[in-house]
Amino acid sequence: MIRVHRFILWMSRTSSLSGCMKQEHGCSIIIAEAALELVPRNLRNHQAVRAHAARLGRNPEETFLDRSYHHAAMKADPSLLKHGRPDIVHLSLAAVMSSPLYLNNQIKVYVSTIDSNSIIIGEGIRFPKSYSRFDGLMADLFEKKRIKNRNGTEVLLELKEGETFNQLIDQTVRPRQVLGFSTTGVTSTFEKVVSNALSSNTLSCAFVVGGFPRGHFSRTTTGKFTGLYNISKMGLEAHVVVARLIYECEKILCDE
Amino acid sequence: MIRVHRFILWMSRTSSLSGCMKQEHGCSIIIAEAALELVPRNLRNHQAVRAHAARLGRNPEETFLDRSYHHAAMKADPSLLKHGRPDIVHLSLAAVMSSPLYLNNQIKVYVSTIDSNSIIIGEGIRFPKSYSRFDGLMADLFEKKRIKNRNGTEVLLELKEGETFNQLIDQTVRPRQVLGFSTTGVTSTFEKVVSNALSSNTLSCAFVVGGFPRGHFSRTTTGKFTGLYNISKMGLEAHVVVARLIYECEKILCDE
Repeated sequence: MIRVHRFILWMSRTSSLSGCMKQEHGCSIIIAEAALELVPRNLRNHQAVRAHAARLGRNPEETFLDRSYHHAAMKADPSLLKHGRPDIVHLSLAAVMSSPLYLNNQIKVYVSTIDSNSIIIGEGIRFPKSYSRFDGLMADLFEKKRIKNRNGTEVLLELKEGETFNQLIDQTVRPRQVLGFSTTGVTSTFEKVVSNALSSNTLSCAFVVGGFPRGHFSRTTTGKFTGLYNISKMGLEAHVVVARLIYECEKILCDE
Repeated sequence: MIRVHRFILWMSRTSSLSGCMKQEHGCSIIIAEAALELVPRNLRNHQAVRAHAARLGRNPEETFLDRSYHHAAMKADPSLLKHGRPDIVHLSLAAVMSSPLYLNNQIKVYVSTIDSNSIIIGEGIRFPKSYSRFDGLMADLFEKKRIKNRNGTEVLLELKEGETFNQLIDQTVRPRQVLGFSTTGVTSTFEKVVSNALSSNTLSCAFVVGGFPRGHFSRTTTGKFTGLYNISKMGLEAHVVVARLIYECEKILCDE
């Protein structure tokens, strides 16, 4: 049984920002290879996992792998270095979904998880800032696959199980440009990347930010990129990249 | 007894950003009237508070007031509308303390709580992104008043109990300019405010962002401001304001 914390999720009632440009095709942010996944089968009997699940009032298979609690279960497996950081997704989504650009439906947001699930996020949703509410909401989504509004007339969040990053790009987002950010990319600045992307004839552009704690994008992911940029002398955390991207997009798409 | 989650807090080993300007006086960010406080005495016996404290393995007086868990205890008291949102402080500090500007010791960070405590945050600390670790760290700080590094040679975090916002400004931060952000301020942009503040002869400037969920700064707080700016058509959440401020400061203080 999943015990879900009460969470706030409603369609925004914010008034439209008349200063924002109407977009024909729109731009998107994708948190890719995101370290948000249910505890894998081989770790579910570990004491650290069972103890954490018990504290949440859930079964181990209904909890998210989280290095803050499951380090003892994860430390022996070097293949898990990019895994177990749901807080990265929470901070990144908070950065997007608190922005005027998102609340005015000027940017779409997707999460592509490291174990190949896609999360489609509806427009203008006020997202839970409290981590425990976010955790409860994600647990609810992974159980039900869809979260609807109160009237049941609109899908606010959808989990597409088994949908890879490539499938998300080709079948759902379908952008003209796919621009990734990584310290392995071409040196540039947020201003230049966003300005070039949004000033082209088509505004259909997906910005891809890594939702994992260390390492780089896999070749499968970078294979879809039309550009890869390094925008800081230091490696930046995902939520910092997202916040700066959104802000630069707003400068172009919304007059100040 | 306080059960503190294991947390990561260490002095940053990031290499210096040679592109950052050396500052004579430095600039600061203050999260003011921050909704981070221990559960007040009159609410400690409420069932919602006791149940949440039990889940954390703490006594009620060792837990932070949090509307996510304590709404039932808080809803009858309209004076608590600005209270009980420690997640605002967590998101705001994550936005500052993940930035190259902070990690390179180019900006100082303070929290002034709504019940008049000051938190002095050391330089170049890697702060816990996981909320539960942040919560454990703050509980530890409120119990011990000081958190030192592993060698015990340096104070990383300090709680000054009973130090008001005015005292924090006058005795600890001592900036030449105190610039607040609020929808009641003069319309401007982040670029203009930061550019004007940092281009003056003195770089000694404190940016003040409200760490509460609704309402405005108190008159006591605004009484210390030398400028009050409205930088968005929509009210922005604290972590969004902080992220944009830091980014604009970096553009001036660090070459790209």
